[in-house]
Amino acid sequence: MGLKTSGSNLRVDGEALWADLMETARFGGTPKGGVKRLTLTAEDRQVRDWFVKTCEELGCTVSCDSMGNLFARRPGLDDSLPPITMGSHLDTQPTGGKFDGILGVLGGLAVLRALREAGHVTRHPIELINWTNEEGSRFTPPMMCSGVFAGIFTEQEVLDKRDRAGLRFGDELEAIGYRGGEVCGQHPIAAYFELHIEQGPILEAEELTIGAVAGVQGMRWYEVTVRGRDAHAGSTPMPLRHDALLASAHMIAALAEVARAHAPAVGTVGLIENRPNSNNVVPGETFFTVDIRHPEDHVVAAMEAAFQERFRAIAETGGVDVEIVPIWDAPAVHFDPACVAMVTDAAREAGFAPRSIVSGPGHDAAYVARVAPTAMIFVPCKDGLSHNEEESITQADAQAGANVLLGAILRADAAF
Amino acid sequence: MGLKTSGSNLRVDGEALWADLMETARFGGTPKGGVKRLTLTAEDRQVRDWFVKTCEELGCTVSCDSMGNLFARRPGLDDSLPPITMGSHLDTQPTGGKFDGILGVLGGLAVLRALREAGHVTRHPIELINWTNEEGSRFTPPMMCSGVFAGIFTEQEVLDKRDRAGLRFGDELEAIGYRGGEVCGQHPIAAYFELHIEQGPILEAEELTIGAVAGVQGMRWYEVTVRGRDAHAGSTPMPLRHDALLASAHMIAALAEVARAHAPAVGTVGLIENRPNSNNVVPGETFFTVDIRHPEDHVVAAMEAAFQERFRAIAETGGVDVEIVPIWDAPAVHFDPACVAMVTDAAREAGFAPRSIVSGPGHDAAYVARVAPTAMIFVPCKDGLSHNEEESITQADAQAGANVLLGAILRADAAF
Repeated sequence: MGLKTSGSNLRVDGEALWADLMETARFGGTPKGGVKRLTLTAEDRQVRDWFVKTCEELGCTVSCDSMGNLFARRPGLDDSLPPITMGSHLDTQPTGGKFDGILGVLGGLAVLRALREAGHVTRHPIELINWTNEEGSRFTPPMMCSGVFAGIFTEQEVLDKRDRAGLRFGDELEAIGYRGGEVCGQHPIAAYFELHIEQGPILEAEELTIGAVAGVQGMRWYEVTVRGRDAHAGSTPMPLRHDALLASAHMIAALAEVARAHAPAVGTVGLIENRPNSNNVVPGETFFTVDIRHPEDHVVAAMEAAFQERFRAIAETGGVDVEIVPIWDAPAVHFDPACVAMVTDAAREAGFAPRSIVSGPGHDAAYVARVAPTAMIFVPCKDGLSHNEEESITQADAQAGANVLLGAILRADAAF
Repeated sequence: MGLKTSGSNLRVDGEALWADLMETARFGGTPKGGVKRLTLTAEDRQVRDWFVKTCEELGCTVSCDSMGNLFARRPGLDDSLPPITMGSHLDTQPTGGKFDGILGVLGGLAVLRALREAGHVTRHPIELINWTNEEGSRFTPPMMCSGVFAGIFTEQEVLDKRDRAGLRFGDELEAIGYRGGEVCGQHPIAAYFELHIEQGPILEAEELTIGAVAGVQGMRWYEVTVRGRDAHAGSTPMPLRHDALLASAHMIAALAEVARAHAPAVGTVGLIENRPNSNNVVPGETFFTVDIRHPEDHVVAAMEAAFQERFRAIAETGGVDVEIVPIWDAPAVHFDPACVAMVTDAAREAGFAPRSIVSGPGHDAAYVARVAPTAMIFVPCKDGLSHNEEESITQADAQAGANVLLGAILRADAAF
């Protein structure tokens, strides 16, 4: 019977998927070919309206929860079963691209279209989700409403967030007409799959098409302040200096060594401020951030110990003080092995060698994984570039990713 | 006869000198105890008016040249001889102290007072000079009007300089009433001595009172741009990065090594800008300055070759491009050995062990040295701190410096 098919005869329509990507890119489209579609703006409302209309045209009913998360539901044979779900986000960075998040939603739409066009009836209902405010650039933090869904944040704290103009999240959500009645987090989910661009260079470098995402790296952030003493660059002999920037330079180099020693870890100083920052003054103080990540939390902890020891030794040698303040600790996420296997199998069936990969960036899937079996699919993006108007993928890779998503959904429908 | 005395019986009045320092600190005095007396402002006019009045009360006649440089002249036995001169500057940094430059002028005033009170008649006229705009913070570059005096800059180019508010140097000089008739540079000088605070930590560290300044270090400045590639801090493996800040960190460390290998050289990165400077983005570009100094020009040249080679190797290893642009080359200045010996002798006579020292900062004396035999005297300042409202010296050191200045002036009067 049809229910037991692997769906190996089903394929998404790559042309239609690409047309959807290009069409939605008009909502907030920028002259440089990017998208500026901040959450809860007029542009966000436009793309949501388009999403609702398009899903309804495909025979779905769309519901909205109290955080504006949208659920487009295609009925299954047994509507008492929790839905097999897929999705991502339609909001973008201020100078974002056409694919980050959007591919996961429109790829899901392509899956719904393929099911409809094949007349394929699933056992579970299938739902496509658009999560509110994944980017976190208008209202911080990121992944805000999948976070409420998973119980990471309370609804009230998020409703009370304000943007830099002082506007309140809850008011802006009401204003665009997407504050729904269903309490966020009460929507049942049997499994969740998210298709996303890699936002990194690995698949491209290895000339591979599909990443089967095993989880999200554990990540810790720190703020480091180095205090030395301002001094005249001409009159202060090297041995008498307390050069905060020179000590920081050694710390930055040490952090990279620590990361390389814990491969595949990454360690980054992305932001630095130097004071007084004058070309003839030996710097008296620096402030910089440290970002360390590794798929396993115990390695992140070991890296933390290692870089802190190195930093303290460098400070001692350099005659400066160092203060290291932990500001964020996001434990590693391990996706559901069964769901990851469904992605892997679906990729192989579609003719791709799946590359096991651990996500560096966070995603809505990282929070959803706390409340439902979850996995992700990555496809390459040009030069690993994302959060950038030049973000670029190929139509073939978009189609491949959506086909793997379809295969995973059908496997989950059979398995759960 | 009196003319042949070494003047070893003459001493400055340290109390009066200190009182002068405290009195002039009122013109532009700040709540934190510093001085804000930018060149050609109302405060500069106030201190100039005070200077003219005080010098005239000591029997001097004051002339002003076309750049506002002031010459207070005490007649000698033979007024056809060019004057033995001393001086410095009365302008300050925006958050300056009470002593940088000012000590050299008021120390000279203390010398004039000592000569007058002792009834000591010199062979040459003795002149005390206040140079206009040594600091260069309102109108750049620094040492502007001793620079015109020495033929480094033309009068017209300096008159046409504008401050950040668009005000023209020439107009502002007229406005405070200190554009004199004598063409700048035509004032004869037999010898020039400048007393100054060290603005560095050496004398304090060695518990010495008098620096006999042998010259000013050669100095070169560069602007360095490192170009890598922005990348996501979470998703970009260490081996695939082109991290401009990490490469810059290695360059900063390398510059310090090059400086230490050429001791007593100094090498400084005082200013750095990092782009995009976001905590989860691998930096794609940095801009920083390099300042290298050594008493001998050939060593500065060797340092330049060494650091450039190191930077290029680091760029190669780090997968980034580096561009190094020379922006300033100030050759080393060697003061007149006879004048330096007069300082050394005067220090010993006054009971101090003179410490031979090479100035890191530039001074008016560095330009005057091009047109007249010149030397400088340094006294310690607390923690080597200068260009800072907390700049601090002791009354005893101020007095010591002025006494050595007096001794040097009398020696020059005998020798030239």
